[in-house]
Amino acid sequence: MVMRRAGIIQLLDGRHPRNGRSVTFALNGLILLSAIAIAVETMPDLPDRAQDFLGWFEITVLLVFALEYLTRVICSPRPLRYIFSFWGLIDLLAILPLLALLQPQWTAVRILRLLRLIRLLKLFHTSLALDRMSRAFRAVRGELTVFGALAAMMLYVSAVGIYVFEHPVQPEAFTSIPMSLWWAVASLTTVGYGDLVPITLGGRLFTTLMLFIGLGIVAGPAAIITTALLEADKFGVESPPGSNTKNMSNKEIKK
Amino acid sequence: MVMRRAGIIQLLDGRHPRNGRSVTFALNGLILLSAIAIAVETMPDLPDRAQDFLGWFEITVLLVFALEYLTRVICSPRPLRYIFSFWGLIDLLAILPLLALLQPQWTAVRILRLLRLIRLLKLFHTSLALDRMSRAFRAVRGELTVFGALAAMMLYVSAVGIYVFEHPVQPEAFTSIPMSLWWAVASLTTVGYGDLVPITLGGRLFTTLMLFIGLGIVAGPAAIITTALLEADKFGVESPPGSNTKNMSNKEIKK
Amino acid sequence: MVMRRAGIIQLLDGRHPRNGRSVTFALNGLILLSAIAIAVETMPDLPDRAQDFLGWFEITVLLVFALEYLTRVICSPRPLRYIFSFWGLIDLLAILPLLALLQPQWTAVRILRLLRLIRLLKLFHTSLALDRMSRAFRAVRGELTVFGALAAMMLYVSAVGIYVFEHPVQPEAFTSIPMSLWWAVASLTTVGYGDLVPITLGGRLFTTLMLFIGLGIVAGPAAIITTALLEADKFGVESPPGSNTKNMSNKEIKK
Amino acid sequence: MVMRRAGIIQLLDGRHPRNGRSVTFALNGLILLSAIAIAVETMPDLPDRAQDFLGWFEITVLLVFALEYLTRVICSPRPLRYIFSFWGLIDLLAILPLLALLQPQWTAVRILRLLRLIRLLKLFHTSLALDRMSRAFRAVRGELTVFGALAAMMLYVSAVGIYVFEHPVQPEAFTSIPMSLWWAVASLTTVGYGDLVPITLGGRLFTTLMLFIGLGIVAGPAAIITTALLEADKFGVESPPGSNTKNMSNKEIKK
Repeated sequence: MVMRRAGIIQLLDGRHPRNGRSVTFALNGLILLSAIAIAVETMPDLPDRAQDFLGWFEITVLLVFALEYLTRVICSPRPLRYIFSFWGLIDLLAILPLLALLQPQWTAVRILRLLRLIRLLKLFHTSLALDRMSRAFRAVRGELTVFGALAAMMLYVSAVGIYVFEHPVQPEAFTSIPMSLWWAVASLTTVGYGDLVPITLGGRLFTTLMLFIGLGIVAGPAAIITTALLEADKFGVESPPGSNTKNMSNKEIKK
Repeated sequence: MVMRRAGIIQLLDGRHPRNGRSVTFALNGLILLSAIAIAVETMPDLPDRAQDFLGWFEITVLLVFALEYLTRVICSPRPLRYIFSFWGLIDLLAILPLLALLQPQWTAVRILRLLRLIRLLKLFHTSLALDRMSRAFRAVRGELTVFGALAAMMLYVSAVGIYVFEHPVQPEAFTSIPMSLWWAVASLTTVGYGDLVPITLGGRLFTTLMLFIGLGIVAGPAAIITTALLEADKFGVESPPGSNTKNMSNKEIKK
Repeated sequence: MVMRRAGIIQLLDGRHPRNGRSVTFALNGLILLSAIAIAVETMPDLPDRAQDFLGWFEITVLLVFALEYLTRVICSPRPLRYIFSFWGLIDLLAILPLLALLQPQWTAVRILRLLRLIRLLKLFHTSLALDRMSRAFRAVRGELTVFGALAAMMLYVSAVGIYVFEHPVQPEAFTSIPMSLWWAVASLTTVGYGDLVPITLGGRLFTTLMLFIGLGIVAGPAAIITTALLEADKFGVESPPGSNTKNMSNKEIKK
Repeated sequence: MVMRRAGIIQLLDGRHPRNGRSVTFALNGLILLSAIAIAVETMPDLPDRAQDFLGWFEITVLLVFALEYLTRVICSPRPLRYIFSFWGLIDLLAILPLLALLQPQWTAVRILRLLRLIRLLKLFHTSLALDRMSRAFRAVRGELTVFGALAAMMLYVSAVGIYVFEHPVQPEAFTSIPMSLWWAVASLTTVGYGDLVPITLGGRLFTTLMLFIGLGIVAGPAAIITTALLEADKFGVESPPGSNTKNMSNKEIKK
């Protein structure tokens, strides 16, 4: 009996010797489909039939994950420990919108609808991606802090500068320093929406100066994250599948 | 006779000992000219004479490639094998618009007109560029998958977040989550068209956060492709012309 | 008595053996809070109570830093040397807005209000960030000069070119070469606000050409700064805390 | 007498043993000032006095460079060889606008006014920058060709695709494929002016796909140029001043 229970947990975690990852793949596929459904649901001109279908699909998904949660609680060797673990709480939160089925007027509660998005986190349960990402962020935490501080200061100085130059001429555009901060973010990341544009000579010279110095500093965090993720990915590929990740990173340090 | 046929195939493939690449260069030049002609044809204020000239040019190009196709079929040692090969099918598809000459009313069929663009693929027949590119993509397939998945999740989360913040205030701009996804693509690639811009404080703070984390993740695929293409190019330059590419990549792995 | 004075200076500089960095942390936190206050103050629809609170907060901050200044002057072993040192002058300038308390009509003097921003510089007094940044800039001074000159020339040529193409068609947009220079900055940094856009065929072809050549040259300074800051950061992390920075960079050169 | 002439040439070329680079610096400064003057001249609301001043400044600059040209012709050991050399022709073209002084009605001839910009090229005569840049471009010629071809094809395919999707809905925006090509350039370089924006679902999905693949390919040329210029700069700094550049690059190859 214990064996059979352990087998079911293995099945849900994608570590079952025979049926392998098929169940996990099906559940992850369901999560992705429901993510698409949540997006499509918000489209305004949706025909009634599609709306109905999405509603029924949502209930099906909720019931499937409720079933998964109950199975995990029943089959877990220590149910309480699972219930209060990180992934146990995520699994519980992801099925909370079921309450709206019992009390239909709760559907209006926005937070309940947003809880459905927590399902996305479940994608990371059986994949290495989250581990990889957190490893990457941990490896560059120091650099990110320094660059983040420099970038924040650069943005603040840019916002104050452009406010001084542009506020007297465009008081309805550059209304305040927090508003100018939004301009600084859009400009120094080179997004450049064009909703706020300096028009004075001083403001333009200042922008030119800030762009030439600031792009390098504001581009820092992005460059660090790209590099770190590429590094973490390389390590992940090099290690044989199933190897202990912590062990590997220790070896990395010994080198 | 067989020799002469083989010589013609060599001529068309740019491997002829004496006349070298001249025929291939002429055919590729014709493809490029027809690509320009297809673009110019769509310009609205074109004088009638230019329109006529482009029509005749198009027919000439079609006839030249029909001639090439027939020559290849006749001169190939195994005609059927050529006809059903990848490049044989491409060559056939590229001359299908000739049907519009026989049945003028088919000119209206759009798909027939677009088939002319398949000629561009013929450019890759005798060049190493396609080989290089496919090699580059194969080498980074794993990294592209991981980054593609992270970028897709980042875009989805950004779209949902901005929808939650901006939809109540700008319901006609951020109409739905798929619409917000378009905003997320334009913002996180730093294109920033400016057709959709957050105006709430929450939306702007969320955008700032997403830009600082997301640029690094969304820039990942582009950085990987640039690097891979540069690497593939380097290998291509280092290897002597005519060397076996697969052999070389094996050597790379042995290192 | 001398010991006690030295102890107070150590406390303010964050080098006190027991109370450690607590005082510095409190003072830096106060600077960051006042930076936020300066930004919030400019928001137009602020309720009177918030305005009053920010006014009192500003006076408190000024008094705290005036107290710090007086303490440093009194406790310094050589008061005059401190007063005329770089950080002594910064500390003095940062409390100059106190004059507005004595003569309320001086509040209108803009320069006096902007002096409050000098406080931000005080953040660097006890941190290594400024040292790191100046080291990074010094290391790439030569490269920055070459790239800066090339980028300036690229921008000038782009501005003249686009003026020649667009001025006759859009005289109200591309009014002059200095105006076109603003377009060149916004385009070649890929910010692309969209306030000035070429519409002639020549102008667009010229822009395409400039973008393909110019992006590489204009992106140079930013790439150099990112790399230099990452390098400087790496060196900073590797060196044990408290080690002599100049010594370390010598070792770097010996390698 | 020959010695004195050679001395004058040395003076103009900045290789004079005693007076060193002072004359070259003065002449280059004059070129930069005249570049600024050309830009300022185009500003519409310039007062008459400034206009007059710029006119007189322009004449002075022209006379100075006419004097330099005459001196070089007279003092050159082989005047004809100088006159027909590359730099001799540049020097001559740069003073051609003097003709407008003799025949005032020629001032209207635009090409004559633009010739003044050729002076900028004279900046490179005595500097190493042009040498560095041309060395950098030569080193990456092969890679630039491959990437340029891929980028051109990517832009063409993007333009055709967006035309197919957007022309039926926005015929006044995406009028033709050449117009769509302008959209492709502005989007794939991430400039994103916002003058042309896809609004159909198909067009937006296509843009997303193209951005994820295309950014890596279109960013290629810029990345190659940045890297090559940084490399060329490094070599330039490492070599002792006055060393033979060609020699050095040979050593590079031998390594």
